[in-house]
Amino acid sequence: MRETILAQAVRVASTNGLEGVTIGHLATSVGMSKAGVLGHFGSKQNLQLAVLDEVSKIFTVSIIESGVDQPPGLRRLSRWCEAWMNYLDSDVFPGGCFVTAVSAEFDGRLGPVRDRVVAILSTWLSALQDEIDVAQEAGELSNDVDSKQIAMELNGFVMSANQSRQLFGDKSALELMRRSIRERLTLHVPVAHDVGIPSQ
Amino acid sequence: MRETILAQAVRVASTNGLEGVTIGHLATSVGMSKAGVLGHFGSKQNLQLAVLDEVSKIFTVSIIESGVDQPPGLRRLSRWCEAWMNYLDSDVFPGGCFVTAVSAEFDGRLGPVRDRVVAILSTWLSALQDEIDVAQEAGELSNDVDSKQIAMELNGFVMSANQSRQLFGDKSALELMRRSIRERLTLHVPVAHDVGIPSQ
Repeated sequence: MRETILAQAVRVASTNGLEGVTIGHLATSVGMSKAGVLGHFGSKQNLQLAVLDEVSKIFTVSIIESGVDQPPGLRRLSRWCEAWMNYLDSDVFPGGCFVTAVSAEFDGRLGPVRDRVVAILSTWLSALQDEIDVAQEAGELSNDVDSKQIAMELNGFVMSANQSRQLFGDKSALELMRRSIRERLTLHVPVAHDVGIPSQ
Repeated sequence: MRETILAQAVRVASTNGLEGVTIGHLATSVGMSKAGVLGHFGSKQNLQLAVLDEVSKIFTVSIIESGVDQPPGLRRLSRWCEAWMNYLDSDVFPGGCFVTAVSAEFDGRLGPVRDRVVAILSTWLSALQDEIDVAQEAGELSNDVDSKQIAMELNGFVMSANQSRQLFGDKSALELMRRSIRERLTLHVPVAHDVGIPSQ
């Protein structure tokens, strides 16, 4: 039952925000009493934290694990970016990128929910930056640009694609930003370095 | 009085989202009755639309008008991007970029509020794209990349800067993305083309 409530809470939060998840509506939609829902989570805040843990698990399975069979550096980075865009493309969450949505929702507030969002996003950006460092040390990416800057650019391309997709229903947005990612990851790299990034 | 209520509503919406603006809290914080606040706006939805109109006005004054004295093309585009980052830097809204926040908040819903957000953002992205087209036709930017793609990249850099700034309190984020914007706008342009973009 906990899993059913949680899955429904993730769906609702994806479109209405984490604050849009109310115990009352949730109880109605899974056919339980409010006390029954609260019995599983204790409080609205604990439910919000459980939703974030669930989203983090989905993100890990969909994206991070897709890169484990790739060597560190540019290959793993490319696989991650591909999986990241596929995750937007496949509408894993009805409201688009969950982490982007909750980061905009909670960035102006303090508390454990914000702290969890910060932890999830900073872990991901650090993982990207680590692979960029490896790629730069191996000469797969030129190191005239800071690795943190490149990680932030990749994150920006994904956020931009997500926004145009969700807000304008623009299907071409993902394709354009896939191209930007490919161009970013091959920028300044000698042609001789064929690292398996599919062109076009 | 309408202006006072509206200014307070913009502040609240900037950190708590447009749905976080409640007539009751607003009435308390400006020292009016709920009926008094409703008398000025009619409904919560009309208040939300009035907030968006106000935000759009601030965005126009802070950013779009900063480029009117520049010639169309790369110079206007550069000025706009500079003003866009300065607008984040100066914390015009306590919750960071207002348009990014409400687009994440409303992208999963239908209705007049979402439609207004779509209109504001698509007008801005089109304006960027128009200047990129002019710059490409004038040879100030190479035209091997689609103008829509470049506009989306610039938007992504700003979103990424805003996210790291708001969520991690990372002051260096704006500087890194300023650099990305400069690099993007000088990419593939022969050195001879000095168009007045300050370096570093």
